[in-house]
Formats: sequence, C-alpha cells, structure tokens
Amino acid sequence: MKNINVAYIGYGERGRALLELVLEQVDAIGAVCDIYEDRAEACAKAVEESRGVRPAVYTDYKAAIADESVNVVMILTAWESHIPIALEAMRAGKAVALEVGGAYSVEDCWKLVRTQESTGVPFMFLENCCFGRRELMIKNMVELGLFGRIVHCSGGYHHDLREEIAFGVENRHYRLRNYLSRNCENYPTHELGPIARILGINKGNRMVSLTSTASCAAGMHEYILANKSDDEALINAEFAQGDVVTTVIKCARGETITLTLDTTLPRFYSRGFTVRGTKGMYEEATDSVFLDRQEDRAYDWSWVKNKVGNADDYAREYEHPVWKQFLEDGVRGGHGGMDYLELKAFFDALRADAPMPIDVYDAASWMAITALSKISIANGSAPVEIPDFTSGRWEE
Amino acid sequence: MKNINVAYIGYGERGRALLELVLEQVDAIGAVCDIYEDRAEACAKAVEESRGVRPAVYTDYKAAIADESVNVVMILTAWESHIPIALEAMRAGKAVALEVGGAYSVEDCWKLVRTQESTGVPFMFLENCCFGRRELMIKNMVELGLFGRIVHCSGGYHHDLREEIAFGVENRHYRLRNYLSRNCENYPTHELGPIARILGINKGNRMVSLTSTASCAAGMHEYILANKSDDEALINAEFAQGDVVTTVIKCARGETITLTLDTTLPRFYSRGFTVRGTKGMYEEATDSVFLDRQEDRAYDWSWVKNKVGNADDYAREYEHPVWKQFLEDGVRGGHGGMDYLELKAFFDALRADAPMPIDVYDAASWMAITALSKISIANGSAPVEIPDFTSGRWEE
Repeated sequence: MKNINVAYIGYGERGRALLELVLEQVDAIGAVCDIYEDRAEACAKAVEESRGVRPAVYTDYKAAIADESVNVVMILTAWESHIPIALEAMRAGKAVALEVGGAYSVEDCWKLVRTQESTGVPFMFLENCCFGRRELMIKNMVELGLFGRIVHCSGGYHHDLREEIAFGVENRHYRLRNYLSRNCENYPTHELGPIARILGINKGNRMVSLTSTASCAAGMHEYILANKSDDEALINAEFAQGDVVTTVIKCARGETITLTLDTTLPRFYSRGFTVRGTKGMYEEATDSVFLDRQEDRAYDWSWVKNKVGNADDYAREYEHPVWKQFLEDGVRGGHGGMDYLELKAFFDALRADAPMPIDVYDAASWMAITALSKISIANGSAPVEIPDFTSGRWEE
Repeated sequence: MKNINVAYIGYGERGRALLELVLEQVDAIGAVCDIYEDRAEACAKAVEESRGVRPAVYTDYKAAIADESVNVVMILTAWESHIPIALEAMRAGKAVALEVGGAYSVEDCWKLVRTQESTGVPFMFLENCCFGRRELMIKNMVELGLFGRIVHCSGGYHHDLREEIAFGVENRHYRLRNYLSRNCENYPTHELGPIARILGINKGNRMVSLTSTASCAAGMHEYILANKSDDEALINAEFAQGDVVTTVIKCARGETITLTLDTTLPRFYSRGFTVRGTKGMYEEATDSVFLDRQEDRAYDWSWVKNKVGNADDYAREYEHPVWKQFLEDGVRGGHGGMDYLELKAFFDALRADAPMPIDVYDAASWMAITALSKISIANGSAPVEIPDFTSGRWEE
C-alpha cells in the first residue's frame, strides 16, 4: 500500500489519544466518524488543524467505510461495535486496525476470521501492550533461553476504573452499561497478548480450555454510595460484573495462564505480568528477574526487597532491539511509547505488504476469552473449550 | 488439662524444628516415636538431654499412643499418616495437635470430624502461618474495617523445593513419592489458613466450590538432569505433579480465593498473601498497604516502588496485639516466631480447657482442598463442590 488514507472511526478517549500519532504516520485521514456528532466534529477539526484539509465527517460508520477516498479503517469505538465495524470494513476491501476489547460471542470471532480469510485484506489488532518495554525485554530473554522452558504465565488488568464507570452516562462511556449487564473477563488482551506471544499461541501452540470464576460485585455500589449518592438510578443499580474475575487457561503444550480482571476495587495500576520457566522468572509486581543458580535462594523479605526493580540491570544486556532503537531515537507517544510502536508496526507492515504483527487469529483467540469466560461463570466455573481459530494451522 | 505429657510422633525436619519449643511448654514428653529407629532414638536422646528423663521409644505410632503416661499426641509425620494417627489418638481419648498437609480423600476429612465430635477430645491443627506477623496485622486491619468488605484473597506456596524432592530417597522425605504419583494442590494450608480466618470460613462463611488447573511437570526433570544425572531411576521418572497448580475457590458470601502451588521452578520464597477489599488492600509481593482515598491513584512503577515495604509504617498503629506483646517479650522460635505462637496457643487452650484456636472443622475444610483439587484436575478442571464439614453450623 502506497497511499494510506484512513477512515478514523471513534473519537472517545482512545481516539483522542492516538490521533496525533496516526496523523504523523499516514498520508491522509480522509474520513472521520463518531456516533456523537460533536465528537465527529471535534475529530474533523483536529485533523484539519494538523493537515489543513478538512476530512469528510460521518456519524454512520457504514458511510465512513464506503467513503471512496479511504483504504484503511481504524476502529477506536465502544467494545460492542468493534467486530461489526471490522466486518463491514473488510467486506468493503479496506485494511483494518482494530482497537482492543473482548468479544460478545464466539461466533463473532469466527466471523472475524472467516471474513478476513475470504477478503484477504490486511488486519491488525492494536494490542499496544505487546509493544511494552518490559514485555518485549522478557520476550527477548525467553527467546534467548534464559528462563528455560516456560511453564506458567500470569497477568491481570489491575486498574481502578470506578470513577470512569460511575460517570459512564455523563462521559458516554461503554463500560458502565457493560458492568451493569455482563459478568466476564471483559478486558483480557493487555495481559494475554504479551503472554500469548511468549507461549507461541497460534504459532506452534494454542489455548485449549479455560475456567472463569467471578467474585461478588461490591466495589461499584460502595463507590457510588460514597461518591455519587445523588444518582438514584445508580444507587439502586445492581452490577452484574464481579469485582475480581480469575480465569485459568490451559495450553496445548501443557502451560497454564492465569488472568485477573480487577477494575472496581481500590488499588494501584498493574498488569501483573509474570513469566515462569524452568530456569528463571520475571514478575512485574516487584519488577524483578530471578535466574536459577545465579543467586542464592531467598527466604526472607529483606532479600526480596533488594531485588525489587532489578529488571533495570538486565535491561542493559537484554533490552529488546526495537526498544534499544526507540530509546536511542527518543521514546514518544502515549502509554510509555507502546502506542507509537504499535501504530508504526501496523503502518510499516501495511506499506511493506508484510504479514501483520498481530493478526486476525490472535485477535479472535484473545477476544474469545471474554465470551468464553462469560459462559464458564454462568455455568459455575465449568471448563469451556477454546476454539482453534486457525483450523489446525497453529501446529505448522 | 493440668499435666501435659506428650507422645511426640515424627522426628523428621519438622519434628526436630519444634522439639525445643515443645519441651519448654509441656510438663513432659513421655513417649517419642518415628518409623525410623535412628530418628526415634535421636529424639529420645534430645528429650533426655533436655529433661534428664529418657522417654519411652517407639517405632509404631499405635504403641506410642497407647502409652499410658501420655495424654497429648503431637503428629509431625509424613503427610500420608497424619489422619490415621490423629484418628487413633482421638479414639484413645488423647488430645491431638496435627501438623499441616493435605488430605488424600474427602472421606478422611469426614472421619477426622466425626471422630473428634464423637470423642470430644481437644484437637488443634498446627497451621503456623495463621500466627504470622503480617497475616495477623492484616487480619487486625480487616477487623477494624480499614479494607472495607473483603471481596477477594489470594496466596500461594511459592517455595523452590526441587532439591528436597530430588533427594527424597536419601533424605527419606515423603515429598518425592507424592510428586511422582499425585497431581493436586498438595500443600494449601499455609496460605489458605490465614485467608480462611479473614473471610470467616466455618464461622459465618464457607467455601462452596473450587476448580484446579495444573501446568505440565517440567521443573523436576530438568533439575534432575542438571543436578542428579547419575540417578537412573529419577532421570527416567515421570513426575505426576504439575509445576504450578492454580485453584480458585468460591465462598458462600461471594468472595473468591486463588491459591497457587509453586514448588518445582526456580524462584524466591513467598506466600503471596493478598487481601482485597472495597476500601483497601494488602499484598505481600510488595509488602504494601493501599488504602482508598488516602493516596493518589498510581499509574507508574516509580510510585509503586515507593510503596514497597510500606506495611512497616502501618505496623506502628495496627500490629496485632499478640505480636505487640511478642515483640516486647522478644520474638523466638522458628519461622520468624510463628512456631512458638502456634504451640503456645495450643498448650494455653489445652490448659484452660478453652476452644482450640484452629479446630477440626478448619483442619477438615482446609485439608480437603488437596483431595478436591486432585478430582478437579483429573476431570479437566471441572468445578467440585466443597463439603460443609460443620453440617450447617457455619451459619451460626
């Protein structure tokens, strides 16, 4: 692809966060779209201010996709619309970059796969955490064999979102309605993406089954009582979404993955990224690397405390090449640079007609965790099979 | 009970670690026992050196229990013999202190409960971690309401035991045979005990179901290849026990508990004790307390790093009374003082004819997790009901 002209769909928080980085890397943003007119207009204004050219403005994504000037569709909308918009775009023969979220049904994930396969358009899943500095450094160390055979990984989306959820009506945010109506691992990909790449999921390995267990939902109600007690509707609302959802995934080669959704209780932010191998480990909680036989076994907290943050020492030798370069050139863009790197990876692959760094099989299998976890929770944590969206090609 | 005379059964590592503390607190150790004659003899010698009186020496636990001089039986043996010895002791009308371990069947746990109920003898489960300094401080903070409603707890037995297991024949250690033949959460109580007490398990709450998922078993084989390559039997052995077992428990009041068994991969020691409530949290990984609205929400590692170890600050105000006194008097005994406190709690209750701090219902429900996790793993992580060993009395 030579002349990248984007239909930019969705101008909520995420759309606003990425716009500048996208404008830097594309030839044009020919169309902008949001179901809210004011947002679509704000997006058009921002594009015009940057480029001097006013894009076409839409509130209907179908019209934006149909716009003949555009050949790439970026989807930065509410979770519910991700797959429908992606399907429409692929059917129109446009390349797709899809923001993260979970799927509402396994069938939706199959549609994503089938439509990409039948249309052959480039498709990338914008999982920025796959480009995180530590995530890539640890992937590098794993590939160098430093951790031995990887046996278990865990991660979580530990992010106190109570304010965002409670003010979801005012902010026109999709999380509120989702937390009221659904109980599932609703946002698995930030931690699962980097883990899946380390475990070779869909590339020699695959996820075969999961169980999900949800705690009660207590965090939002207490938050609303304390911070929004004048909101009668919310004071009396029952939230379906459990505060903490624990999902345990089994992989074809015997590895296990534990995911934790944890967004409605007080705490500090973490993705809890942890990688355990027969020769070593990394854990984000203490940002520490532990290599077998290079250090004494440690039994007391004072020893552990000395290890806190020692991953920085390993960075000197094992920083991922992408990040080495990035640090030299100067890190920029949101989320500590991950956003810039994911967009660059997408547009570079698009221009080079190269395979997409995070493809439709990754998207389908990661997003399906949400739909499958909902089934497991509804069935008392019963194990649920995870479909093989590659139809057997993962073994190749 | 006025004259405490102990039959001390089992003189392996644990028996050796506790003997001196027991000798301090009892009137006599009238009988010692180990299936290995040399160990029984060593125990007798140690008792004689301390007290000037040689105890009766047995290799058959039934004979030791039948010894008319003793009224208390302490069980510090291999996991497999815990419940049979406890049953024999209770049937003989002797008080029982039982070291920790998991059960081999749910029926064994029921036998423990029925036999204690029918004999009425004092029974205590020696879960020393219930007396841990941080565990008790956090329990204190929970009871003061500082963490709000507790929604989720997690913990693990993160302990690199590869050497102990690999040299199990030489050391006559029971872990080796267990790791060769069983795949389960084989040692849940160190983390579950303190969590169960915080959640009021068997005292207003109960555990209702669990799922367990085991990773492949790769750690032991690699360890043996590297460290015991002349051991033909072990080089060719297949270990049944997965390296990491994740168990998720659901409680009657909606709380969830996640347990991790993690004993055959390289890492530093931790019990991963974590308590999450609607108003605050504690996590052992960073030894940090986080209280809602008392601190800014934190998004970056530099902030988190500043919190590492801040639980010490809270100790000034919230140290558990038992530990305040212990620190004043001078902490002593193994495992950072926990061993001393658990034994003191047992002998104090025995002398005062008071309820046992950790009773047979705690023992049965905590030990049953092992047997139930085995069933879940064997059935592809299927959810398994956890029996109510109190027969409904947990609600009182």
